[in-house]
Parts: sequence; structure tokens; C-alpha cells
Amino acid sequence: MTSETDRLKIKVQLHCGDEIAMGPGKADLLEAIDREGSISAAGRAMGMSYRRTWLLVDAMNRCWDLPLVETTMGGKQRGGARVTDLGRSILRHYRTLQNDIDRARAGEPLAAMLSALRDLPRASQQSE
Amino acid sequence: MTSETDRLKIKVQLHCGDEIAMGPGKADLLEAIDREGSISAAGRAMGMSYRRTWLLVDAMNRCWDLPLVETTMGGKQRGGARVTDLGRSILRHYRTLQNDIDRARAGEPLAAMLSALRDLPRASQQSE
Repeated sequence: MTSETDRLKIKVQLHCGDEIAMGPGKADLLEAIDREGSISAAGRAMGMSYRRTWLLVDAMNRCWDLPLVETTMGGKQRGGARVTDLGRSILRHYRTLQNDIDRARAGEPLAAMLSALRDLPRASQQSE
Repeated sequence: MTSETDRLKIKVQLHCGDEIAMGPGKADLLEAIDREGSISAAGRAMGMSYRRTWLLVDAMNRCWDLPLVETTMGGKQRGGARVTDLGRSILRHYRTLQNDIDRARAGEPLAAMLSALRDLPRASQQSE
């Protein structure tokens, strides 16, 4: 039996123009930077290339009144990095919002849907 | 000023194995089929190719105990289509779940984040 967590996904994203200012991946990245103390180590821990990691940090930093991540030696030098006060605040609020939304999902509508949802799809029948 | 709806996106998906059994696009498609009475007309109304529309319907139909859409003349003949009783029930529960989650988002964490979120990103600085 597949767990409810595997069957229901709720993605919360904050947008700024065409950029995603905060979402599940960026929140995880912020936590990894806070833990690892560097952008490159955080990216490695998440299995992402340095370029992709840097682009995510750059996008986050451009979307808020102040940057969420500060680097000590500039983007390209791969120096140390820290999550700013605003970054910690946004991360905390984002996790709270996720939890509030998570609690809202419990209830009759979800239970009714899960009772009719198969564990695996039937095979496709291209014509009948 | 960008509206809150443009700035916050919450995507609710139900998964069945590797398929998405229900999500925002599939729920809109079910409503379009219900309104248009055919898969091809529903796809056209949503700006999708017939092939893509048919694949979405096929995926939905394979993920639940019974199909959500019934075609009167088979998949390839582009005949009429109707949303089944189970389809209507799943759609109603999905919209209720979306509304419950939508209400949960109101509150301090979101307000705090929106107050620091820019309308548009700053320009990127590739090095500093």
C-alpha cells in the first residue's frame, strides 16, 4: 500500500514576475546552505550542479527586498555563504504556511478520493 | 501591484504510481469535457492537441477504481464523451480540497512573506 505522502503532493510557490521566489526546492536549498555554510556544498548535498545551485540562489536573492543568502567572497569564487536574517524569517514563514496547508488537507474530501485511487495505474489500452 | 493570486500558487496533485491521477490541469479538463461533451472539443477549448488531451484522459482513467471519462465511440473515433459518476464525485472532492487549502493559506506567515516580496526581480548580476 502506497503511503498518503506518496499519493498527495501539495506544492506551495511564491512568484515574483517570471521567477519562483520560494518553493519546496528553494526552501530545502536555504536549509542546506544554512547547514553547510557554502553554496557549493549545499548544492552537492542536494545532488545539483554548482551552476544550477547558483542560479537558484541568484533567483531567490533578486526576488525579495533584501537578499536571502550572502556570500563572503562573491558568487563565482565559491566562498562561504550564510542565510541572512530575512532568509531565516522567510524560511520560517514558508514552513509554517506549508504546515497550515498540510493540516487543511486532512478530511472527508481527501479520504473519499484516496478510497477510489489505485496504487498503480491500469495498463494503457491504445484503442478499444 | 501584482495580485496575491499571481504571487502565490498552490498546486494539489494526487499521484498513482508515476501518473498524476488528479491535478489542476486534469480537473479543468474534466470540467471542459463535462461542458463540451467531447474530448476533442474540450482539448480545443483548452488549447491542447488532441493527442495530449487523449493522453491526459487515458492517464486519469487508469488511476481510479473506475474510469472518470466514458467515450461513446472509443478513443480514436473522437466521438462523444461524458464524465462518469465517479468523475463528478472526484472532481467535487478535489475542488473542496482546493478550497480548504486555499482558506488555510490566509494568515500571518503569508502576509509576512508578501510584505518582503518584490513585484519583479532585480536584474541578475552574473559576478560582483
